[in-house]
Amino acid sequence: MGSLNWSSAITEIGPNTIRLRGYPVEQLMGKVSYADAVYLALMGELPDQETSTIMNAILVSSIDHGTSPPSVLSTLTVASTGAPLGSAVAAGILSISKFHGGAIQDCMTAINQALDRAKSSGTSFEEAALEVFQEYKERKERLSGFGHRLHTKDPRTVRLLSLVAELGRAGDGITMAKAFEAVIAERTGKSLPLNVDGAIAAVLVDVNVPAELANAFFMIARLPGLVAHAHEEIQRQRPMRKIHPTDVTYDGPKLRHLT
Amino acid sequence: MGSLNWSSAITEIGPNTIRLRGYPVEQLMGKVSYADAVYLALMGELPDQETSTIMNAILVSSIDHGTSPPSVLSTLTVASTGAPLGSAVAAGILSISKFHGGAIQDCMTAINQALDRAKSSGTSFEEAALEVFQEYKERKERLSGFGHRLHTKDPRTVRLLSLVAELGRAGDGITMAKAFEAVIAERTGKSLPLNVDGAIAAVLVDVNVPAELANAFFMIARLPGLVAHAHEEIQRQRPMRKIHPTDVTYDGPKLRHLT
Amino acid sequence: MGSLNWSSAITEIGPNTIRLRGYPVEQLMGKVSYADAVYLALMGELPDQETSTIMNAILVSSIDHGTSPPSVLSTLTVASTGAPLGSAVAAGILSISKFHGGAIQDCMTAINQALDRAKSSGTSFEEAALEVFQEYKERKERLSGFGHRLHTKDPRTVRLLSLVAELGRAGDGITMAKAFEAVIAERTGKSLPLNVDGAIAAVLVDVNVPAELANAFFMIARLPGLVAHAHEEIQRQRPMRKIHPTDVTYDGPKLRHLT
Amino acid sequence: MGSLNWSSAITEIGPNTIRLRGYPVEQLMGKVSYADAVYLALMGELPDQETSTIMNAILVSSIDHGTSPPSVLSTLTVASTGAPLGSAVAAGILSISKFHGGAIQDCMTAINQALDRAKSSGTSFEEAALEVFQEYKERKERLSGFGHRLHTKDPRTVRLLSLVAELGRAGDGITMAKAFEAVIAERTGKSLPLNVDGAIAAVLVDVNVPAELANAFFMIARLPGLVAHAHEEIQRQRPMRKIHPTDVTYDGPKLRHLT
Repeated sequence: MGSLNWSSAITEIGPNTIRLRGYPVEQLMGKVSYADAVYLALMGELPDQETSTIMNAILVSSIDHGTSPPSVLSTLTVASTGAPLGSAVAAGILSISKFHGGAIQDCMTAINQALDRAKSSGTSFEEAALEVFQEYKERKERLSGFGHRLHTKDPRTVRLLSLVAELGRAGDGITMAKAFEAVIAERTGKSLPLNVDGAIAAVLVDVNVPAELANAFFMIARLPGLVAHAHEEIQRQRPMRKIHPTDVTYDGPKLRHLT
Repeated sequence: MGSLNWSSAITEIGPNTIRLRGYPVEQLMGKVSYADAVYLALMGELPDQETSTIMNAILVSSIDHGTSPPSVLSTLTVASTGAPLGSAVAAGILSISKFHGGAIQDCMTAINQALDRAKSSGTSFEEAALEVFQEYKERKERLSGFGHRLHTKDPRTVRLLSLVAELGRAGDGITMAKAFEAVIAERTGKSLPLNVDGAIAAVLVDVNVPAELANAFFMIARLPGLVAHAHEEIQRQRPMRKIHPTDVTYDGPKLRHLT
Repeated sequence: MGSLNWSSAITEIGPNTIRLRGYPVEQLMGKVSYADAVYLALMGELPDQETSTIMNAILVSSIDHGTSPPSVLSTLTVASTGAPLGSAVAAGILSISKFHGGAIQDCMTAINQALDRAKSSGTSFEEAALEVFQEYKERKERLSGFGHRLHTKDPRTVRLLSLVAELGRAGDGITMAKAFEAVIAERTGKSLPLNVDGAIAAVLVDVNVPAELANAFFMIARLPGLVAHAHEEIQRQRPMRKIHPTDVTYDGPKLRHLT
Repeated sequence: MGSLNWSSAITEIGPNTIRLRGYPVEQLMGKVSYADAVYLALMGELPDQETSTIMNAILVSSIDHGTSPPSVLSTLTVASTGAPLGSAVAAGILSISKFHGGAIQDCMTAINQALDRAKSSGTSFEEAALEVFQEYKERKERLSGFGHRLHTKDPRTVRLLSLVAELGRAGDGITMAKAFEAVIAERTGKSLPLNVDGAIAAVLVDVNVPAELANAFFMIARLPGLVAHAHEEIQRQRPMRKIHPTDVTYDGPKLRHLT
């Protein structure tokens, strides 16, 4: 049948040798953060110090959002049947899709389109954002990443944008996202501020993550949250209980602050 | 039908409010590492500085091990059919089970049994390890976490144990794991040194992670590796190619060192 | 590493040749029912006429049970995120586990234990059922397959048992299941009649299906139901809607009868 | 938040009442084949006698195709890790996607497009097929359902088409599929005969199954095959063995014929 030999550029394995993208894993351990290793695995290079801080902040921002997301509800539903924890969180991962988590990728795509437009035709960011906005409107598609059902001033968005600014890393992605925000306000008369998906999208563009990995970033960030919910279901609830999607009371620790 | 109201103690959500185990998420962003947030989500409290370093190191150590693990092969197989990346990594998560990743949990269980034995009956760690070892032998079960097909001196094990020692955090879990190592050598005449699963198991015992979360920790650590492999499959290979399980050549970056 | 050649006894494939367990697939098409092919694939032989009728009846009986089972709710939850239909039903399959569908396998195991006991020690079915019942009680386990939350006289159970009797195929599995039913009534003072899981278990024992395939039979039977629910979700509901687990109204065809 | 009440038209459930699309399930048991119930669950009505025979034949034709499809390889890979059988087959279901099984849906879409074209503009089937063929060519897409890597004269295709003809049910779907076959031969100079995916597609069009259910039909048909492979893996192989994708020998029953 001929050779089936194939190649992979991620990790080199040999007796007593494990090298992630060329780096001996034992050198990385204790020296770089896990978020750095995530960036290295996906992007092929270690992040610089500022990008490392941003990567950690993005992953922290998305680790959990309570019990209402469908990824949590499908995880709980499977966990309640006595299935292994891995089956439960796999069902959660399968829920991170077009309408749940997908806004990051969709917003990155729109930002990248507008940036390419501005670069190739020499138009301003404002003009490029307007053109892309109008093309979406003609196709009756919605620009993702703007407005939020619950949060009018999402604390994650505020913090992420200020952190990136402090680090001197607000780049073209963020500028274009704000251009979209202005175009939307002007053309629709509605205030639909950049939401957390849009802010993450803009920042991921600025740290060179390709749009096709956006959904995966969200899955990586959210998996520990799904695990926590599955574990809580197993610890606190009886098997096969009926899971109401919204009638949930928080009974965890009261508000506390980092010291 | 009566109320279906239920409670959750993980994340408190309100308008412009997201608090993970009581901490406003925007305070965590930029201040704690993602590994710290993982610990907080699962354990309910932030780790101290040494535990934070250990958590980052454990997660880094397990992020990828090349193309041979079944979780990678099932991920690649699904990715090659044109399925979404989330479906591919879900299949990988489903592969992290009894014989793949399960050794961490099995080893934690044995360590915890021996520690409970030593504590409740006042026997020495050596005696407790010997008793548990013999019970496994009688049930014809294997003690997991010792010996490795490929690595005689796994660099991850060496580094993890020395890091924990440097941080002054080598606890009872590690002592008991070494007691098992000695018992195995003495009773079987074979050198089956503590492997990376066993070392992680011992350290997770020492940072108070419950054994039933061990598999989940491994899933969290490995998911970015699975994403990297799925992405590489989509980028480099044609759909529906035949995936040989071992005939793989590494063609990534040459050996390089942290600067 | 030596040869990786391996063998499989299910389907022989060659150019213009597809033989399921030895039978050319084109001979099976139009001649045997799909349920017969299921039996052939799993058991290695075609069923006789009575077993064929029973297999069809069991699969029909389990094809759907409305919207309340967790397999449906996890399917709907994933479908509502815009994920592909295959991801949605995979989440449903993952929900068919210990407490959902698992009763068939658990009941088969108990029936087989009691039958082995009766055969090896020459005790009566009644004595064997009592011994196994008491062993479950000592281990504080529940005998699965008896009693039902909703159905006091499950129409599927009644029909399955009468059908098997009409066909002259009520065997030792059914006799032992009824022995358990009598033991439970006598020892607990409660009427916990054989439910549909128990009836299917008894009949599967009588058609020689091994207990470890019971869960799989249920998955096969239920998958079309899951598909129907996923399709209905996509057709009738908006993405990301909140899915109440019990507040559902049936609005399909009125009662009608086979003509 | 207002009522979360919702409706479903599939199965009506009440105490001692289970009605699939209006039919009491106990009336269906023993009277209709499982394939009929699949059709009823998905389409809302029972098939007539000829459609019943066709449904059974399609499902039988697709139940298994040996060890080479990715759905089998991902199922085996997960099964070899000690995961539950349900996790293994869920990974298989996730592999039935764009390039594996997807050809049926793609071919149905093309056939439906050409049929709509012929109907709305009054062109002949030949002209409509040519127009659609050329549009695919312009978009650099491939018409699915024609040609096969292994089978030059697929026995399933031959049998399915002759069966449908015998039953007097060769309809517009089949006519249009053959018009495509002729157009491809004429325009490309290559003989790419209707393959089994194309034949199933044509027949599903003729029994009114919507294209968006095509992939699901294939999943339903193939699940028992996946179960058989997972079960064989667990019975015959050691955990974590290396699974070669092509070096497999058939060692099941020799050729035998229906009697």
